[in-house]
Amino acid sequence: MAEIYSKTQRAVRWYPPAYDIRVETVPVPKSAALSPAIPIKTLTSCLRSILHPDDAIVKITLAGLCGSDLHVYRGHEDVNDPLICGHEFIGEVVALGASFSSDATNRPALYSDLKLGDKVVSPFTVSCGECHFCRAGISCRCIHSKLFGIPDLPGGQAQYVRVPKAGGTLFKVDSITSLMPPGEEHTLADSSLLLLADILPTGAFAALQALQHPKISPWVNGSAYPYNSFVPEVMASSRPPALPLEDRALTFAVIGLGPVGVCATVSLLHLLAEIHEKSGVTFRVVAVDPNASRREKMQSVLALPSFPPNIDTVVVADIEDAKGVVARWTGGVGCNAILEVVGNNSALTLAYELVRPFGLISSVGVHQAPQLPLTGREAYDKNVSFDFGRCPVRSMLPIASSILIKRQDVFGGIGDQASLIEKVVGFEEAAEVYDLFDKGRCGKVLFDPWQ
Amino acid sequence: MAEIYSKTQRAVRWYPPAYDIRVETVPVPKSAALSPAIPIKTLTSCLRSILHPDDAIVKITLAGLCGSDLHVYRGHEDVNDPLICGHEFIGEVVALGASFSSDATNRPALYSDLKLGDKVVSPFTVSCGECHFCRAGISCRCIHSKLFGIPDLPGGQAQYVRVPKAGGTLFKVDSITSLMPPGEEHTLADSSLLLLADILPTGAFAALQALQHPKISPWVNGSAYPYNSFVPEVMASSRPPALPLEDRALTFAVIGLGPVGVCATVSLLHLLAEIHEKSGVTFRVVAVDPNASRREKMQSVLALPSFPPNIDTVVVADIEDAKGVVARWTGGVGCNAILEVVGNNSALTLAYELVRPFGLISSVGVHQAPQLPLTGREAYDKNVSFDFGRCPVRSMLPIASSILIKRQDVFGGIGDQASLIEKVVGFEEAAEVYDLFDKGRCGKVLFDPWQ
Ligand SMILES: [Zn+2]
Ligand SMILES: [Zn+2]
Ligand SMILES: [Zn+2]
Ligand SMILES: [Zn+2]
Repeated sequence: MAEIYSKTQRAVRWYPPAYDIRVETVPVPKSAALSPAIPIKTLTSCLRSILHPDDAIVKITLAGLCGSDLHVYRGHEDVNDPLICGHEFIGEVVALGASFSSDATNRPALYSDLKLGDKVVSPFTVSCGECHFCRAGISCRCIHSKLFGIPDLPGGQAQYVRVPKAGGTLFKVDSITSLMPPGEEHTLADSSLLLLADILPTGAFAALQALQHPKISPWVNGSAYPYNSFVPEVMASSRPPALPLEDRALTFAVIGLGPVGVCATVSLLHLLAEIHEKSGVTFRVVAVDPNASRREKMQSVLALPSFPPNIDTVVVADIEDAKGVVARWTGGVGCNAILEVVGNNSALTLAYELVRPFGLISSVGVHQAPQLPLTGREAYDKNVSFDFGRCPVRSMLPIASSILIKRQDVFGGIGDQASLIEKVVGFEEAAEVYDLFDKGRCGKVLFDPWQ
Repeated sequence: MAEIYSKTQRAVRWYPPAYDIRVETVPVPKSAALSPAIPIKTLTSCLRSILHPDDAIVKITLAGLCGSDLHVYRGHEDVNDPLICGHEFIGEVVALGASFSSDATNRPALYSDLKLGDKVVSPFTVSCGECHFCRAGISCRCIHSKLFGIPDLPGGQAQYVRVPKAGGTLFKVDSITSLMPPGEEHTLADSSLLLLADILPTGAFAALQALQHPKISPWVNGSAYPYNSFVPEVMASSRPPALPLEDRALTFAVIGLGPVGVCATVSLLHLLAEIHEKSGVTFRVVAVDPNASRREKMQSVLALPSFPPNIDTVVVADIEDAKGVVARWTGGVGCNAILEVVGNNSALTLAYELVRPFGLISSVGVHQAPQLPLTGREAYDKNVSFDFGRCPVRSMLPIASSILIKRQDVFGGIGDQASLIEKVVGFEEAAEVYDLFDKGRCGKVLFDPWQ
């Protein structure tokens, strides 16, 4: 059972205008009002100090440093107030608002299921689980959506964090370990669970957007276009014969091999392996980055036991090599789909160049101010489709969790050449690792707020 | 049985640089080599003069004048040679190459099925039916794709036209009338069949792209995102309960009410009515155009028997009214999907404004040189998807045909206030109707080459 004995906590705070990270002592979120001498042990005892009845207070076990944190760090986000950084965290529930009750049966399940002491993962944005968007699974566009790590909603690089709409937002680690063989639950590393807050679901989303798209459906499902998910009645009678296997070889490119790009590549390979197993469909993936150390990381990941030895369906390449590989594989036609995980116009331009006519660009990179780099005529002439935007992490967690537990060799490591996570540090190193991370001199770092 | 007695024919020709339409006597396509005195009556007698064994020569019954013809007419297409205009035509097969034979069983069905005298519709582009793209149903990106009405491939505003890859390209009217109740086949007007060459399939494609998109699937299929067409195995076990009907009310906008826009609106309503009948899902459509006479045409179409009286699910509006209607219907959230049928940046900008977060813009407008009018950040922040490009007409013909025969009150008329076709004229009026059509002073016109 978790306890809060103090009114204050340590947290990583950013100061405007840019590049200014300080570790400070600040009030713990709202339950600060509790007497410091009284441990929070029961649901009832928490309620006195909670800001909103739907809130949970989570004691942070690990918090991530993410490429998106750099937008604020560099002063690109038009924020004028100091804030507690971080939108990736896992932890333990230490306080719950009055909405959490066995009577809350008409609300998202966690309002009746979540208990003090439960281990939880939080998506990087709040989602209520109850609005029109949440009910449709579009948790990233919840009408109550709020990003952690903005002035309005203090982030997770702290010892405690307030989670609004917690019954909709949080995900119990129980529901992940329940997918594992009994007795093996302890093999699930906290550091790998942290990846569920953002980068693994975002990578899986990039892949799933491609595999579910109607323009890719002929290859995935074996029915010629437009015989897809919604088939009007008339079309049923004119359905052409199933595509033979030799017509269904899929080709993809993943552009950008930072941590999200590696997650996108691994998720894509995981899902393609499933499709291959069911239907025999073959696939080829080129993973692209101009940065040699990122390519080496990707290569090391592909050398893990998760992937068959002598895997010849994946090539890691720089930009020029990637163009050659795609031309050779596809006879100049281009890839069925491109996963664009960078978020700038040179990545989009390369994606356009590598995609085939009637192909898809699944773009999960966080783009900035420049106008999209294509003319309408280019988009028309190539029949390109684009899916842009933020991952609905909460809705993606079931699939991301499944990929996580089946690929623990990929997602479980710390500090090895193949690890997505370079190291776990205490807050005293925060300013230094922000600086190194900003300059590309270190990989993904986690904070242990209690170290 | 059709006959060719002449080496020459009359055709509508465009001359560079722009706005120059002449009706001239030109050779009939390749079978011109035949003796003018010998009627073509048998398969064998045709073969001597055909350019390629996969060709058919079609004697034109009706040819359409289309908005896309204006790109060439206005000199916007960088064409320096005179050409025979037109990419929309129906007619009768009068000559077939040697490939057409009962032995051609390993080729697309028409190579063994098509006979002299058969009535056919042609899509506005050639598609072989045999390449990788065609086999996958992507007939608009066939590796042999060629638009009718370019210097390289003389168009259909003539008395005869050469159809390359005819066994893949053409569609037999038989296969349309076979969908009709016996004895009613004669009710299918030639002028309505002409709409199958381009504008009805293109409109239906705009609608189908929206209804098949994974982001629209929660509403159409009742499963929360991302439980769509391709659902990885793990997700099956975590499938959330079906969405209740009250969560599945769909809202669309159609931008641009020219002939294709009317076809898109009617196709969308047709398909939505089918979805409603199956599942009870409700829908609302706003059809938008700044031009009052186009709105009146759309209103007249909606007053036809095809649509229920007092239909309250469709509103025809100018741009400002449309914004108000969408805001009122959706509480400011926006439409699930936008069908963009104009092809310029103000239409795309309006589409972006009217679409909801995590919505889709299905764009079939033929866009020109300007850069796309959105920033990457706008696309990211709204989680927008786009489907751009040309309709795969050949693959869409089964569904477009079905919509056509069920909506003959919409598609069968000529010259009425509700008709998509304003009039049928002879070639002697060609220069005049091009001029009027270019200036927006007449609607869609068909040519009868024999009038
Ligand atoms: Zn992140
Ligand atoms: Zn919500
Ligand atoms: Zn046309
Ligand atoms: Zn083809």
